[in-house]
Amino acid sequence: MAYTAPVEEMAFLLRQVAGLDELLATGKFGDMDADLVGPILEEAGKLAGEVLAPLNAPGDKAGAQLTDDGVKSAPGFAEAYQAFCEAGWMGLAFPEAHGGQSGPKALALAVMEMIHGANMSFGLAPMLSFGAIEALLEHGTPEQQEMYLPRLISAEWTGTMNLTEPQAGSDVGALKTRAVPNGDGSYAISGQKIYITWGDHDLTENIIHLVLARLPDAPEGSRGVSLFLVPKILVNADGSLGERNAVRCIGLEKKIGIHASPTCVMEYDGATGWLIGEENKGLAHMFTMMNSARLNVGLEGVGVGEAAYQEAFQYAQERKQGSAPGVEGAAPILHHADVRRMLTTMRARVMAARAICFATGTAADLAEHAETGEARAAARAREDLLTPIAKAWSTDMGVEVASLGVQVHGGMGFMDETLAAQLFRDARIAPIYEGTNGIQAIDLAGRKVARDGGVAMGVMLQEIAETARTARETNEPQLVQIAQRLEAAGEALGAATAWMVETMASDKDAALAGATAYLALAGDVIGGHFLTRSAVAARGEAGRLRTGMLALAGFFAETSLAEAPGRVAGITGSGNVLREASEALFGLS
Amino acid sequence: MAYTAPVEEMAFLLRQVAGLDELLATGKFGDMDADLVGPILEEAGKLAGEVLAPLNAPGDKAGAQLTDDGVKSAPGFAEAYQAFCEAGWMGLAFPEAHGGQSGPKALALAVMEMIHGANMSFGLAPMLSFGAIEALLEHGTPEQQEMYLPRLISAEWTGTMNLTEPQAGSDVGALKTRAVPNGDGSYAISGQKIYITWGDHDLTENIIHLVLARLPDAPEGSRGVSLFLVPKILVNADGSLGERNAVRCIGLEKKIGIHASPTCVMEYDGATGWLIGEENKGLAHMFTMMNSARLNVGLEGVGVGEAAYQEAFQYAQERKQGSAPGVEGAAPILHHADVRRMLTTMRARVMAARAICFATGTAADLAEHAETGEARAAARAREDLLTPIAKAWSTDMGVEVASLGVQVHGGMGFMDETLAAQLFRDARIAPIYEGTNGIQAIDLAGRKVARDGGVAMGVMLQEIAETARTARETNEPQLVQIAQRLEAAGEALGAATAWMVETMASDKDAALAGATAYLALAGDVIGGHFLTRSAVAARGEAGRLRTGMLALAGFFAETSLAEAPGRVAGITGSGNVLREASEALFGLS
Repeated sequence: MAYTAPVEEMAFLLRQVAGLDELLATGKFGDMDADLVGPILEEAGKLAGEVLAPLNAPGDKAGAQLTDDGVKSAPGFAEAYQAFCEAGWMGLAFPEAHGGQSGPKALALAVMEMIHGANMSFGLAPMLSFGAIEALLEHGTPEQQEMYLPRLISAEWTGTMNLTEPQAGSDVGALKTRAVPNGDGSYAISGQKIYITWGDHDLTENIIHLVLARLPDAPEGSRGVSLFLVPKILVNADGSLGERNAVRCIGLEKKIGIHASPTCVMEYDGATGWLIGEENKGLAHMFTMMNSARLNVGLEGVGVGEAAYQEAFQYAQERKQGSAPGVEGAAPILHHADVRRMLTTMRARVMAARAICFATGTAADLAEHAETGEARAAARAREDLLTPIAKAWSTDMGVEVASLGVQVHGGMGFMDETLAAQLFRDARIAPIYEGTNGIQAIDLAGRKVARDGGVAMGVMLQEIAETARTARETNEPQLVQIAQRLEAAGEALGAATAWMVETMASDKDAALAGATAYLALAGDVIGGHFLTRSAVAARGEAGRLRTGMLALAGFFAETSLAEAPGRVAGITGSGNVLREASEALFGLS
Repeated sequence: MAYTAPVEEMAFLLRQVAGLDELLATGKFGDMDADLVGPILEEAGKLAGEVLAPLNAPGDKAGAQLTDDGVKSAPGFAEAYQAFCEAGWMGLAFPEAHGGQSGPKALALAVMEMIHGANMSFGLAPMLSFGAIEALLEHGTPEQQEMYLPRLISAEWTGTMNLTEPQAGSDVGALKTRAVPNGDGSYAISGQKIYITWGDHDLTENIIHLVLARLPDAPEGSRGVSLFLVPKILVNADGSLGERNAVRCIGLEKKIGIHASPTCVMEYDGATGWLIGEENKGLAHMFTMMNSARLNVGLEGVGVGEAAYQEAFQYAQERKQGSAPGVEGAAPILHHADVRRMLTTMRARVMAARAICFATGTAADLAEHAETGEARAAARAREDLLTPIAKAWSTDMGVEVASLGVQVHGGMGFMDETLAAQLFRDARIAPIYEGTNGIQAIDLAGRKVARDGGVAMGVMLQEIAETARTARETNEPQLVQIAQRLEAAGEALGAATAWMVETMASDKDAALAGATAYLALAGDVIGGHFLTRSAVAARGEAGRLRTGMLALAGFFAETSLAEAPGRVAGITGSGNVLREASEALFGLS
């Protein structure tokens, strides 16, 4: 039941693979330099391993509870949140002007991975605050920023995102919550929101809800949605807490996982709120914080995958079954080739997803801080391209890896009491929320690839080819072999990309039918690219990191990358087949 | 929450693809002829859909409960079992001499698929009886058969299999339960068994436990294990029930799924038992019933997958989100290409697994009933070859498809109340029990492929090539395309098989490292073979079955079959990579 943050690997990936050193060298992050990365991660790792991880299984059993007094969090969570707050982790990547530390987002995301890995239910509380903070930074007035940001960034308060209603899930524009002007600059918000993560709790004195609602004269659909800030407790002009607002949690969902994260049905009954940004631009404003929320969910997949790996590895060392050469008596199952294969699969896929997510994080930082406008635009394009992959590929990976963790445990893995089983249940939500993985695939294929004619992906493909060339030029047989696999995989992704760009214009339905398979391929190839880059970079590192990265890249190359060329047909060919199938299978003409 | 047995597709697969008509034409199944297949499946489908399916979700919530009086099954289960018993389903494929109907096993297995699909927790009770009946048929004395078989075959009693102990899971030979001769031909059995499915319950008056234990002078390990029959209630010579035996359930496991199936910790405290078969041959005797138990578990994967598909399809018709061409207002999500892709993936994979399982079933029937010894041996080799694939590929598929079912449901799929969520939890056990899927892969690669030098797989590969040829010779463009994919996939499986045969002799550890990937490839190719055969056979059927089978085969060909050639490297290359990785990743030298 222990979780140990993989600090060495994280620091290596951030610095040597995702470009954090170059980022810090821009001087845009105050006095933070690259040598601080390790110690910062160490310190966060202690919080994750020593404070949050021990609460994970008990939190699953106890869950959050709805009382007359609002939602009570699981035992220990309030104290742990206090520790998180006092250590200042929330502010790591937010501006000093609002009480933060102006560090790189990529580093803050690495810290979030640890928190999710140690205790995903807990991690959701700060994760939702991220979104609220970003919305206010981007779209809040100076007064709003001054009133709310310092205490969100200090983690003294948390934030939430209120989008979903029963009839409005993926189709956010179908929402019905109303916002009526009070005449004093505030609005009366009324309606019901569902699936609101940490919508109510006792971790903090106040909760700042960001709520999508419709103004009285708003157009129908997604063009008539505005964004409002609704505090749980109204804040007086002097900053002190005032009256209780007319918003409350009226129900908690019973879920198969993340039991300690209260998933609330929220009722707004003429609650007082303030418009954030422009009228009827709520959806666009929400989207500005989507990138980071989606990337954060991707890191949930990575964190839970890492935890599942660690748990399975530990179990495989302890559980003895059967014999193995060189072992007296019953051998730990780690000695069985098939168990090693499962563990290696888990580790390789976690590492690939982590690299994708970290690289997305540094792209987000560069999009803000690079020297030239051109460089910033290029970084933004990279962030935009990678975000749906970071979200969807990593969370699908999280489910797959958690399932392998169950399998390594055998019968024990099916028992409620086992952390492996909890991780399997917890992991399952991540492909669903913050935009289902199907939505991510459509976003990638449509907005991120087809819309710019494949340019951003083309840049990525060039990098992939360069990585393969670099690996080949080492003349080390293992790296040369990996380079061959990567080259072929990159060509496959290139072919699929060309098809996608063309088909999105000529036959959108066929293009969309291939979107999920396209995203899966892109994740495999880009993940393999980063693992290859890791293996090359690790040649300068000490023994175990060097051989470990080489082994993971090698394994990934022979499995995922080797499969890539054969997967193009599943993208390009399935649209027609699906169309033919529609009537026969589904009664659609 | 409805389950409708897919009777038409089942009958088609059994008769046109798995060879049931030819089997019945042997005349070895009494007066059962092919025209009865449909009506029998219809009748079983009613039990599944009308009696068992409505208990599935309530059973998940209520679970089985341990009381001072033993285990109480979930509400309604005892009555449903009574209906199952009275309809005579248990005896369908067992000898008339013992009260059965001497029908084909393949047909009984199709019935079991329905039962598992409607209510997997329920299905486990008869499934375990199957094992006990087969052990007695094969190894019981005439007296034992007379005393126990009629009431097991009538389903008046149930049977269990008691193998696992805390230190003896996959390594059954490590068990410690003792059997001491009482001097009167009976034995006193003492020890603790865990994970005993339906080990105690109130469905029937008596339970016949089959228990692995050690005689006092037994050799260590798996060569010292004997099989015993231990009734819950001792049976008097006249067949009446006598004293309560010293065996009881002392605990129920809390599991993430199949809550209505009691998973018991059983304590044997000098319980009276009788040896079945020979001393110290218990493991071998158990293995004679393993094939059918494993195939039955494979059908759990198929049944749960089918249920997940039906549930997701229904939800996709009802849930409206977003717009679609030709639909006014919000469109059912079924209209979105990505949802159709998920549903088609689910359906194609379920159908492929079903075909593999049914073909394994007819092979088992032919192994017993074919005219010539040669034909029986060939059928036995086919049954042996397909069994681990039927078990592992189908149950991995069950988890994958149930997970897709969750995804189609979006946020609703993560809610405890949703059947989709229950199916996802239920499905997860099937890759673990009756020999983990890793064990199945080792069984396939070692005992079934390498041991005979690849002969049985070679025969399968020839059939695959013939199926491809037949499809090509139709000159229908879609079938020709499928044929090309199947041919290439067959060649890939051939190459992997040749490597496996050679490597199991020269480098066993590398061979075993590739075993799971080999089984996955074999399942894909053989599943694609059966789907291709289905598409060809369905040309003679009515519209929707014909176009549906063609569409499923086409989709499977462009996805799974097209990927097959790229997956050989993951089998042949990963052994070396894993070996290199062992020290770096796992500290093994």
